[in-house]
Amino acid sequence: MASGGRAPLTMPFAAWARERQQRIEHVLERVLPGDDATATRLAAAMRYATLGGGKRVRPLLVYAASEAGQAAPERADACAAAVELIHAYSLIHDDLPCMDDDSLRRGKPTCHIAFDVATALLAGDALQSLAFAVLARGLPDDADACGVLAESVGVAGMAGGQQLDLDAAGTALGADSLAQLHMMKTGALIRASVRLGARCGRAMSDHETQALDRYARAAGLAFQVVDDILDVEGSSASLGKTAGKDAAQHKATFVVLLGLAGAKARAAELREEAHAALAPLGADARRLSELADFLVLRNR
Amino acid sequence: MASGGRAPLTMPFAAWARERQQRIEHVLERVLPGDDATATRLAAAMRYATLGGGKRVRPLLVYAASEAGQAAPERADACAAAVELIHAYSLIHDDLPCMDDDSLRRGKPTCHIAFDVATALLAGDALQSLAFAVLARGLPDDADACGVLAESVGVAGMAGGQQLDLDAAGTALGADSLAQLHMMKTGALIRASVRLGARCGRAMSDHETQALDRYARAAGLAFQVVDDILDVEGSSASLGKTAGKDAAQHKATFVVLLGLAGAKARAAELREEAHAALAPLGADARRLSELADFLVLRNR
Repeated sequence: MASGGRAPLTMPFAAWARERQQRIEHVLERVLPGDDATATRLAAAMRYATLGGGKRVRPLLVYAASEAGQAAPERADACAAAVELIHAYSLIHDDLPCMDDDSLRRGKPTCHIAFDVATALLAGDALQSLAFAVLARGLPDDADACGVLAESVGVAGMAGGQQLDLDAAGTALGADSLAQLHMMKTGALIRASVRLGARCGRAMSDHETQALDRYARAAGLAFQVVDDILDVEGSSASLGKTAGKDAAQHKATFVVLLGLAGAKARAAELREEAHAALAPLGADARRLSELADFLVLRNR
Repeated sequence: MASGGRAPLTMPFAAWARERQQRIEHVLERVLPGDDATATRLAAAMRYATLGGGKRVRPLLVYAASEAGQAAPERADACAAAVELIHAYSLIHDDLPCMDDDSLRRGKPTCHIAFDVATALLAGDALQSLAFAVLARGLPDDADACGVLAESVGVAGMAGGQQLDLDAAGTALGADSLAQLHMMKTGALIRASVRLGARCGRAMSDHETQALDRYARAAGLAFQVVDDILDVEGSSASLGKTAGKDAAQHKATFVVLLGLAGAKARAAELREEAHAALAPLGADARRLSELADFLVLRNR
């Protein structure tokens, strides 16, 4: 364990999260291209869309899972950066006119508004490849890490879920189809975050790995259910993105399917599932457990 | 050396290239998602944009470079597929309305015409991640391969070059700036193809690795110069993409800067440079040498 790296377990969750959010900000600043890039405008768009915003949920999951495997945070930095770079790319492309056509993200104009559509397209593309570059360079002894990340992003993961979302426009999805869509669209990258964090630490038994995956599935779905609730209950100002968008677009959401009270009950149930899944990992899983609470109890 | 794998050196180039083109088609068919994908429409768009077309220049470079390192083609399949998947993704995004807004590619409607813009965007995104998945799974002992590919695709490579191309619209680029743009936009992936192919084979000396990089730089630039010549001299039917596009868009090209005869002389010069660079590699570099001829003497 590197000295000064791992935060003491007595630290309250909010302080731990703040420390890790600052940490990932520095890591992202270091790996993103700077003013010396030949393609200056592209570098600026990549930095604009990635730095200084967001809850950094996926990096927090990486760090928390790495602590469950007793890894020092230094070891997890590359994974934490890679999943956030992927997330940033997906937000840029999601906001494009041909997709959700959104103008507000993380409390500021979306990338294609601040720059232009072509630059935003390329910034998303380049953030995706940067994620793999950072991961390959950061974990040179672990090619499989790139495989884990790549599969969570592709046709069987995030991109596939986004396509299901497009296909669902104007149709009435059932609860199972909606859960499947979200298990791919946001759940796959959340599961990858936990898996990548865990592989930074000590070797785990299959039993422990499966426990982490059950945790990640429950936490990932809870995250989405709460997103749907916040889209109804939150304001654009507090969310930093357009509120009420789901209803305006007649999208299937957990609130539409289960009602507001039903969605809240489902979120609470998934939070309990996430907690229960962590039992085999003991006290080292504390930050993961707290993160499940954070994902469900957040107000933005 | 695997039996039946490496083609005999007595085989004429055209037969070798045809055999490798068929080989990469089978590899791509195997790694692309099929009808059983949950996101059926996305899988179909990915297959549409990747299969059954193109000269497969980058996979040929991978196979030729792997032969220079005495590798069996089986060892190079993953690298060959990865670079072609990246190329296919870049063509989809390049053709989008916000970029070149093109409707014809490889002799058929572009992906966003055959499907829709949002699906085409996601198909490009998912092809990029598939490239890294294939590479990570195919070369599990070589995480650095993902790093080499990722860096050729990102802000310092292909995406950066595309941004420079956008930035150059309506301005008068000089020959050096145009060469720099193309060294990034198409050259970086061509250099990565040669590097990835070479690392499939025996360990090489720095001297040999540098020789291959010199070859790839010359061959990559020659490829682009010839592209500019064909855009003037070819027809849409023979090219399988819109001819005369550069002039219509008032783009800086090597033909505009050097004249048609000057561009042809430059292509011939670069072909000689590519040949000369291969000297340290001896007879094993035969296919690379022939490929330089193919890139310059092609008519589509």
